[in-house]
Amino acid sequence: MADLTDISDEPTRLANIIGSVFAGQSKNWSTRLSGGEEVELKVGADAQDDCAVFHLDGQQDIVLGSDYVRGAKFMLYELGHLNEYDVGYYLAMANFSDIAAMGANPIALLSVIRYPRTMTDDTFRAVINGINDACDRVGAPNVGGDIGTAERLILSGAAVGVIESGRALLRSGARPGDRLCVTGYTGIAAAAQKYFGVLKPEGASVEDEKERLLLSSWQRPLARIQEGRCLSTSGCVTSCQDTSDGLKATIESISTSSNVGFVVDERAIPVSDLVAAVSALPGAPPTADLIFGDSVDFQLTFTVQPTELERLRQMFRGTGLSFHEIGWATEDPAVLLRRASGAMETLPGSPWRHNI
Amino acid sequence: MADLTDISDEPTRLANIIGSVFAGQSKNWSTRLSGGEEVELKVGADAQDDCAVFHLDGQQDIVLGSDYVRGAKFMLYELGHLNEYDVGYYLAMANFSDIAAMGANPIALLSVIRYPRTMTDDTFRAVINGINDACDRVGAPNVGGDIGTAERLILSGAAVGVIESGRALLRSGARPGDRLCVTGYTGIAAAAQKYFGVLKPEGASVEDEKERLLLSSWQRPLARIQEGRCLSTSGCVTSCQDTSDGLKATIESISTSSNVGFVVDERAIPVSDLVAAVSALPGAPPTADLIFGDSVDFQLTFTVQPTELERLRQMFRGTGLSFHEIGWATEDPAVLLRRASGAMETLPGSPWRHNI
Repeated sequence: MADLTDISDEPTRLANIIGSVFAGQSKNWSTRLSGGEEVELKVGADAQDDCAVFHLDGQQDIVLGSDYVRGAKFMLYELGHLNEYDVGYYLAMANFSDIAAMGANPIALLSVIRYPRTMTDDTFRAVINGINDACDRVGAPNVGGDIGTAERLILSGAAVGVIESGRALLRSGARPGDRLCVTGYTGIAAAAQKYFGVLKPEGASVEDEKERLLLSSWQRPLARIQEGRCLSTSGCVTSCQDTSDGLKATIESISTSSNVGFVVDERAIPVSDLVAAVSALPGAPPTADLIFGDSVDFQLTFTVQPTELERLRQMFRGTGLSFHEIGWATEDPAVLLRRASGAMETLPGSPWRHNI
Repeated sequence: MADLTDISDEPTRLANIIGSVFAGQSKNWSTRLSGGEEVELKVGADAQDDCAVFHLDGQQDIVLGSDYVRGAKFMLYELGHLNEYDVGYYLAMANFSDIAAMGANPIALLSVIRYPRTMTDDTFRAVINGINDACDRVGAPNVGGDIGTAERLILSGAAVGVIESGRALLRSGARPGDRLCVTGYTGIAAAAQKYFGVLKPEGASVEDEKERLLLSSWQRPLARIQEGRCLSTSGCVTSCQDTSDGLKATIESISTSSNVGFVVDERAIPVSDLVAAVSALPGAPPTADLIFGDSVDFQLTFTVQPTELERLRQMFRGTGLSFHEIGWATEDPAVLLRRASGAMETLPGSPWRHNI
């Protein structure tokens, strides 16, 4: 009989089991083709980065990531707020977000679509169309994968990207003094879940336009490919990760991988109107809990050399993009929030557990 | 309310929906990196091959495939004949079999592992160890992917391989007169399912050693990577596909993709002792039904130019491998079995439907 102590949560399994099983994998594997072309593993499972990285023959590396989408276990899908097109779209974007986090150019999505036997051809087509439209949005083809039945809708994917050799953005390169930045609002996805899952059923409400935009964070998420390309080609970005596990988890993960701490400045954090509106409802969590907690917004969090911050900002502006500077890396390994009052605290937000 | 006519089975969905949605994708997509390095899609979802193929900068192509494993829906797992290590091992090999079918050299497995919340750390570790041992068996690393909870064990994977430019083995190149070959026995996996799922519970039995070997087809399947590399480097192989949908489905698929027919010579088909032993039990299906039907044996079926057959056989012998010549391609598009009696029939075996 299994004792509860024999069952670790996901972050613990990553740290203890995955960490030990894969220790030393990176840079310890290579193979050759018959003409002598070499393929080398640069970043493996031991790095626990958004993607694995291989150096191939020629002037490029490839990056590989894989994400599963809960399908029918998506709360907003169960509640009828998302349809099959939406979850297909989401599957593709969730996978492309890992490619974006490496600063790579996506070249392919592989998709696994398992559906209940009662799913009609029209609904099946909607899943495919959602996946394909998200692929079109980032300019990479869905090259297929696997279809077949299961007891419920199950979606899984893998994405592949290419990047100039040695340019992939890892979680491990932040140095004390680097500026901590984020490409946009976080907390909207969590606010949407809280609103449609709890607050609205209890009678609270925000205006229709805000409802539409909250839902849109789940219906039409966007992998920050353009931003990632800017970051990787700039040459001055020292670490990067997407916020798919939430902003707190992302900053803590860069902290651990880079062996630095961070001070996050509460006043510099971008606060979306949507998050503020939901947070103002009776019974809603504080704004900071939504912004830092387990909210899947697919923004990019990154660090940049302080002397290069302005140049990077200009590069972003040149392509109609922007980012927010929210803090800085420290030698002290603690990750802290500096409140508007000046008080230093640990980051708010519930920790990432991925339990369902 | 969905009419049954709105719900197609998997081969029909592949033919009608996937076929139309992805029409023309192959050779119609490319992208460039900042140094001008070009990536081109050579074989896309429209080809419905074992993998997609991209040409990259440098002298290699990459191949990408993805397979889902039914996990808890595996009959032999449900019956207690397979454990979590075994299904992990199976996941990796099923994915590598698609790489083998392209003649490529596997470089990575991406794995998605979703487990019930009650799964202990030891069992979780067993899944990972199974995956990793299968990766070691073919010499490619498991670079991770996604872990997390689900209502039951769900395993999905994607595999990546590299191959000399332009050498990937497709389903579409067979020409009339080419010899049809298979790398080994088929039907063993189906015989194991029938034996442990139906015949043994009804009281029939084969000797212990045969039981062990039957189960081994599910516990330790082998992706035919070495054979695939022989085939692709030989330069004389015109088409190839793995037998993961069964021998009949494989031959019919090469037939459709290549626009040729086949005559399969019953006397030339290799018959495993295991299949013969199960087929001899009371209530068992005929040998030919097991051999041609929906049996997941991960052999490779291929066609070779007739003048090169002997050279290919020598190449195989040189590396301790072998294959069986079982028929030939015809201009007439029919796929026929020539019985020992000389009678011509359609291929036996139940059609591939992937329903569970």
